[in-house]
Amino acid sequence: MEATNSNWERFQKRVHVVIYGTNTFAGKLFDLILLAVILLSVVLVMLESVKELDAKYHDFLYYSEWIITVFFTIEYILRIISINKPLKYILSFYGIIDLISILPMYLSFFFPQTKILSIVRALRLLRLFRILNLAHFTGQASNLKLALKASQSKIIVFIYFILVISVLLGALMYVIEGPENGFTSIPRSIYWCIVTLTTVGYGDIAPATTIGQIIATLVMILGYGIIAVPTGIVSAELANKTKNTSRKNPCGNCGTEDHRDNAEFCYHCGNEIDN
Amino acid sequence: MEATNSNWERFQKRVHVVIYGTNTFAGKLFDLILLAVILLSVVLVMLESVKELDAKYHDFLYYSEWIITVFFTIEYILRIISINKPLKYILSFYGIIDLISILPMYLSFFFPQTKILSIVRALRLLRLFRILNLAHFTGQASNLKLALKASQSKIIVFIYFILVISVLLGALMYVIEGPENGFTSIPRSIYWCIVTLTTVGYGDIAPATTIGQIIATLVMILGYGIIAVPTGIVSAELANKTKNTSRKNPCGNCGTEDHRDNAEFCYHCGNEIDN
Amino acid sequence: MEATNSNWERFQKRVHVVIYGTNTFAGKLFDLILLAVILLSVVLVMLESVKELDAKYHDFLYYSEWIITVFFTIEYILRIISINKPLKYILSFYGIIDLISILPMYLSFFFPQTKILSIVRALRLLRLFRILNLAHFTGQASNLKLALKASQSKIIVFIYFILVISVLLGALMYVIEGPENGFTSIPRSIYWCIVTLTTVGYGDIAPATTIGQIIATLVMILGYGIIAVPTGIVSAELANKTKNTSRKNPCGNCGTEDHRDNAEFCYHCGNEIDN
Amino acid sequence: MEATNSNWERFQKRVHVVIYGTNTFAGKLFDLILLAVILLSVVLVMLESVKELDAKYHDFLYYSEWIITVFFTIEYILRIISINKPLKYILSFYGIIDLISILPMYLSFFFPQTKILSIVRALRLLRLFRILNLAHFTGQASNLKLALKASQSKIIVFIYFILVISVLLGALMYVIEGPENGFTSIPRSIYWCIVTLTTVGYGDIAPATTIGQIIATLVMILGYGIIAVPTGIVSAELANKTKNTSRKNPCGNCGTEDHRDNAEFCYHCGNEIDN
Repeated sequence: MEATNSNWERFQKRVHVVIYGTNTFAGKLFDLILLAVILLSVVLVMLESVKELDAKYHDFLYYSEWIITVFFTIEYILRIISINKPLKYILSFYGIIDLISILPMYLSFFFPQTKILSIVRALRLLRLFRILNLAHFTGQASNLKLALKASQSKIIVFIYFILVISVLLGALMYVIEGPENGFTSIPRSIYWCIVTLTTVGYGDIAPATTIGQIIATLVMILGYGIIAVPTGIVSAELANKTKNTSRKNPCGNCGTEDHRDNAEFCYHCGNEIDN
Repeated sequence: MEATNSNWERFQKRVHVVIYGTNTFAGKLFDLILLAVILLSVVLVMLESVKELDAKYHDFLYYSEWIITVFFTIEYILRIISINKPLKYILSFYGIIDLISILPMYLSFFFPQTKILSIVRALRLLRLFRILNLAHFTGQASNLKLALKASQSKIIVFIYFILVISVLLGALMYVIEGPENGFTSIPRSIYWCIVTLTTVGYGDIAPATTIGQIIATLVMILGYGIIAVPTGIVSAELANKTKNTSRKNPCGNCGTEDHRDNAEFCYHCGNEIDN
Repeated sequence: MEATNSNWERFQKRVHVVIYGTNTFAGKLFDLILLAVILLSVVLVMLESVKELDAKYHDFLYYSEWIITVFFTIEYILRIISINKPLKYILSFYGIIDLISILPMYLSFFFPQTKILSIVRALRLLRLFRILNLAHFTGQASNLKLALKASQSKIIVFIYFILVISVLLGALMYVIEGPENGFTSIPRSIYWCIVTLTTVGYGDIAPATTIGQIIATLVMILGYGIIAVPTGIVSAELANKTKNTSRKNPCGNCGTEDHRDNAEFCYHCGNEIDN
Repeated sequence: MEATNSNWERFQKRVHVVIYGTNTFAGKLFDLILLAVILLSVVLVMLESVKELDAKYHDFLYYSEWIITVFFTIEYILRIISINKPLKYILSFYGIIDLISILPMYLSFFFPQTKILSIVRALRLLRLFRILNLAHFTGQASNLKLALKASQSKIIVFIYFILVISVLLGALMYVIEGPENGFTSIPRSIYWCIVTLTTVGYGDIAPATTIGQIIATLVMILGYGIIAVPTGIVSAELANKTKNTSRKNPCGNCGTEDHRDNAEFCYHCGNEIDN
């Protein structure tokens, strides 16, 4: 009995090294293959949506997707059984994505329309960062994340403000241009207003009257000025973050990093720092 | 007589706490309900402008709007009678908005077209900042406001300059492309020029001749360079504002400012800092 | 004889005060009226290009423009005779603009098509800065100008690079999409490429083949990254300029301004500065 | 024998000075003529693609291109024989470009379609920087290059993230809008998504349903926020680069760095600074 148990444990351990580890050759190889399969699977779902290709290669696409789904299912089970705290994995961000990457295919037996949901597999591509395990890349990403977090509330305030203004400008254009020029309702005019403010400018709705064009001009100039604000916010935050990333050595006493370039004493323990 | 008076005063006080206060439960609840009603009212005005929905639910939309208008009217009267200096409120930014949020509905008895003006209620949504009472959010907004104010005159100079150039470029394109390619008049050509400079690019008017396309290319590259300016202005101002908001006191020993928020010792002299 | 001479000199002086001066009431009034007339004249030229308005008010527009042209001519002559060095004015930026603002109308006797050139009067609107004489505004403008000048060579390098890439990408799209999808020649494909890179996106030419759309996607992402560069350049320069605009008093010894916020000694004469 | 050899060597040397040198008059003249010929050759290839011009001037364009190709071939051979390490030149960036600038014309004897590849000559225009030999311009370019290199990994992380999100948003729009509104497949919907996120907005595909327009609005606002990120990254890096390039030495007395370029005394201790 014990032998079996230890066999099982040994198996569990080996699987863990391959699936979760990134230091061994097998671990690296597995990660690379996994990423390739994810990419392939996303491409397959995309190609299946192209009518001509689906008509021609329907069977090939269909079976390929099933093979990948089975592969993902086995991987998912192995991930659960080879980890100490399976629940923590299952409820983690990647755990949930791994699950909803395989569910739609099985559900498609009962509800064929759900199959398209397999596209959420694209989110598994975010594993790339983990797989490459580039400290550099992760550092950059986290630096970005910090700056974006610091900008967040400023940007929310800003977007809320923009939306309120868009409602007013949209209603104004609805009154001026009217349904005959494509501004068929206030919601549609608001849609136009945001298309213009963000400088996307599809041209599916465009002002035709002179007054409408004058107001549109004002909206564009406003949007032009407005685009400066989120950019300015993020720039300022990133500049701040970058500035604080210094070329000073960590403190010799307490190891605190990230000193100002003109710091002479550690801001954490007060110890003198040498360059 | 006095009892009545003091009754009235007590009523006034209680109303004031609910309407203007944000610390009591009743005050918070009132604010949240008010915001929800404002949002609902804006959505109703928007939906009414959609022909199909108006045809189907006209009565429901009509009576809902009236109920909300009466609710807003009562709120407006309560706001006036429960405050010490009613005139100050009436003439304040929010007081005027509160009034013009209810006026159009009453005016619509006499002039039905004015009803659409109810959309100005959207401005009442700006109360969100006051309601949430998030010091954090307000701080962010005021920081933004300061930076925008500092950028203001630079940006006005800049927009004036752009407008003058647009007149010249518009006239140039009018001469080159002419009415047969959609550039029917100088004002319309100026409209095209701003659509292009701001990179909106509807495509309702687009150059068709070779020379016109070459000039359009130059206008685009100009616009590309130009978009950098307001962005640069706001970025620089915000970077300035963000940098100057170290919340730490200057060092008590050497007076150095601009400490990190988590600094415990002065980076210049190594002295301990109190918050 | 002398009396006449001195009469002439007195007249010259008085005219100079009114036309060039901005301190007396008459000088200010003249500047304001002049600006209003310039604005009016630009609007008139614009309106004349609108077919319907020209048909209706042709005579009114025609005579108004002539009255303004005569007014500008008198002003031009007065400017020349009331200044000490007329040649300097005539050859200055504003002098040349003042001249080419009136020439087209007179030339239109012989070549009617030149009349549209009167639109260069729009450049006279730049006088606003001089007229308002707002030290603040001029300061802002010159700050901007400095930053733009510092960015200039970086931006020229950048635009040259973009143009070379556009030629290659344009030729690539010409080969892939071909004349049947609107990419009728390499120059036209380059036009498309710049319309896309600058995110203007008229939609008058848009890729129709799958490979074309993939390349277009890459061009857009490139353009997206590229727009960051001039913006970054201007932001950095402006941030630099703004940073150097300090809140320190000028040096008590030599009067040098613009000290760093943490300066303790004048960088020009080495004198100690008090806050 | 030796005389021939030394004759050859002298010839080699003289050619080297003319072709690679930029200090002698002959060297400068050669560089300028070369650049003009490159420009002419690019323009010729472009014009040949315009049907009307090709029909009219076919022979002229054809022979001009051959003359230029022969000129380039001679130049290429001279470059090889006049340099000490020909292989290093042949394998360098410019060496490869020089070769593929002439190959397509010769290949066009066998495969006429390859002729259009001559457009890669446009890359030779990058020689301008070397030819002008402006230390200033090169400095600017290298400063830019450094900032872009520092931003690179942040921007790659960012674009990868955007692409993953575009796949999901594209699939979502494909489900909502469907083939009847132009969203014929997931790849095409992804194309739409990137056209919108980058604010290009051709309008060849635009959402027609209400839910589709609401999601499009969200995508635009997202794109609006997103455009801030690469801009912010580059701004922050450039600001960093620009800031660190004080050309003054640190103070000899107290070691303070970062003096203004026109500083004569240390702003920290008042000591005189030598350049």
